Amino acid sequence: MAIEVNMPTLHDKSVLIEDRKVRILDRRVFPLQVEYVECSAVEEVAVAIEDMVTQSGGPYYAASAGLVLAAAAAEPLSGRDARQACFERAARRLIATRPTNNMILTAVSRVMDSVPGILDRDDLVAATEHLVLDLWAEHRAQGVFLGEHAAGLIADGDTILTHCWGESTIMETVAAALRQGKKFQVMCSETRPYLQGSRLTAHSVGEMGVAVTVITDNMGAAAMDAGKVSRLMTAADRITGAGHVVNKVGTLQLAIAARHFGIPFTAMVKRPDFTAMTPADVPMEMRDPDEVLHCLGRRTASPLAQGWYPAFDVTPPELVTNIATCEGVFAPGALRAGHRVGCAGADNG
Amino acid sequence: MAIEVNMPTLHDKSVLIEDRKVRILDRRVFPLQVEYVECSAVEEVAVAIEDMVTQSGGPYYAASAGLVLAAAAAEPLSGRDARQACFERAARRLIATRPTNNMILTAVSRVMDSVPGILDRDDLVAATEHLVLDLWAEHRAQGVFLGEHAAGLIADGDTILTHCWGESTIMETVAAALRQGKKFQVMCSETRPYLQGSRLTAHSVGEMGVAVTVITDNMGAAAMDAGKVSRLMTAADRITGAGHVVNKVGTLQLAIAARHFGIPFTAMVKRPDFTAMTPADVPMEMRDPDEVLHCLGRRTASPLAQGWYPAFDVTPPELVTNIATCEGVFAPGALRAGHRVGCAGADNG
Repeated sequence: MAIEVNMPTLHDKSVLIEDRKVRILDRRVFPLQVEYVECSAVEEVAVAIEDMVTQSGGPYYAASAGLVLAAAAAEPLSGRDARQACFERAARRLIATRPTNNMILTAVSRVMDSVPGILDRDDLVAATEHLVLDLWAEHRAQGVFLGEHAAGLIADGDTILTHCWGESTIMETVAAALRQGKKFQVMCSETRPYLQGSRLTAHSVGEMGVAVTVITDNMGAAAMDAGKVSRLMTAADRITGAGHVVNKVGTLQLAIAARHFGIPFTAMVKRPDFTAMTPADVPMEMRDPDEVLHCLGRRTASPLAQGWYPAFDVTPPELVTNIATCEGVFAPGALRAGHRVGCAGADNG
Repeated sequence: MAIEVNMPTLHDKSVLIEDRKVRILDRRVFPLQVEYVECSAVEEVAVAIEDMVTQSGGPYYAASAGLVLAAAAAEPLSGRDARQACFERAARRLIATRPTNNMILTAVSRVMDSVPGILDRDDLVAATEHLVLDLWAEHRAQGVFLGEHAAGLIADGDTILTHCWGESTIMETVAAALRQGKKFQVMCSETRPYLQGSRLTAHSVGEMGVAVTVITDNMGAAAMDAGKVSRLMTAADRITGAGHVVNKVGTLQLAIAARHFGIPFTAMVKRPDFTAMTPADVPMEMRDPDEVLHCLGRRTASPLAQGWYPAFDVTPPELVTNIATCEGVFAPGALRAGHRVGCAGADNG
């Protein structure tokens, strides 16, 4: 008998297309507050992405949904050229919101590839929405492949420590493990300064009916030492072809501790990046140091202190037990390129 | 030429005795707000300690200062017995505030030992205040011994990563290093959930004129990997006779990372505890799990999450490079008992 899994809010309610409007869940406050930002024009979607209303995998959905609003602007126009130009302006604006995020480029480009085929339709908005929803379905299916592979590593009785927010990666792994009938718990580090762990991951795992415990970011090794962690599993923003895991700062610290305590560490990414074979090939984002001096907008540090905020760190392959991708589970030194269509690397954050 | 060091607010303004009142700096909000809780009676001091107005080394000062208020209540009484009884009631109440904290017991007992010698004095309040201030001076002198030893380890150009708040330990180490003319910086982990690092340590180090950078608790290994840490130095709540370092949760994680990167780790405590030779001899406080789900009183975590909050972790001797005490610097396996009077173990927190 198939086990039904209750998928979390962030799985399919991050971005909604409703009645020629795009509604974007505000991840800056979720789940402490559940609010949507409503956009009626492409420009509003672009600004919402720039303002971090949605982040991680969210912009994939938001940017592609923005093209439905482009269709609404194009529909009254006569002539393919005028319509195409309208779409192209929108695409450029959306792609420009966060130029280092490949996900936005991928999503918008995939839809734009199909736009010429619908330009003559009277129901241009509905046709565009179909294209976008098909893209989303394919995107989610990729997450399911990864989740099935990663969940195969989970054993009954496991407590899985995770860090930050793995978007589809972590949601689909938990979902697949539940479908496989596994009994397990999740522990998540809160992931300061933005609290992705205590807000997004904890809530999503909780919505799936799995017991979830939040620890502060200094407690990982203590939890391992206390026997409370049997497996470390995190998503990755990028995994090089040689198996270096680039992920939210704090992953390295947990991986070192896991190795010290003999706990396996699985990193998860839809597809490794074979265009980047070493960490030097990956641009490492430094964020505003002021963010580490605040929590939820309130100052937490002495006025005499300065901050330092590297967004990511690099865990070298020798500290990684294995890597789960859409294609399967691999040793970090034996990754292979994937062949699945539309598998767009990482969408976590 | 002797170098003058500007000692921080928390060094000598944590508790003030003024005009038959005890004023206690509110560490729950310092330095974001600088407020004192004013106490006119022993009971008010006891409640302030119970309410965590002051913590770490603060209760040593607050509890002993409470005896000056006991003297004010005893002064109008005639007869040694009545006066002694008044002091004893106060001492019992103050010691009962936080029974697991040896510092309060030590401070109150040391003053009470001398009370019989002043019971006949007309100026009982002034005489008691003298006893208390002498105790404080001796207590601070012990910190200076430790600081001189620990500072000897610091090299020009060091960036010292520290965790949590080391009270006299960290203040006197920084002060001694400055007097020795050393050029160095300090990095501190914010120490969730209570933010002792970003509030108390960062502010105190900054007040001493040393450049201080705050990182969130997930960034220690990343900072080491980036070459930004040359030395890890933390206080300890307790160090066993065999060299196990019991300190604020997060110390273990940093010590494991430091070992991974070949960075020396110095733990600091005025006196090791030779009555506790293994971690099993040290009661480990578990605190309210709800605290990890909040920051500065505001909820930070999903309502679906539970918390876990071990106040301390244990770093085994094999991960400790050396231990600085009032007596000198020792290998963790070669600690020796101290002989200094009044050296009361740890006062950090």
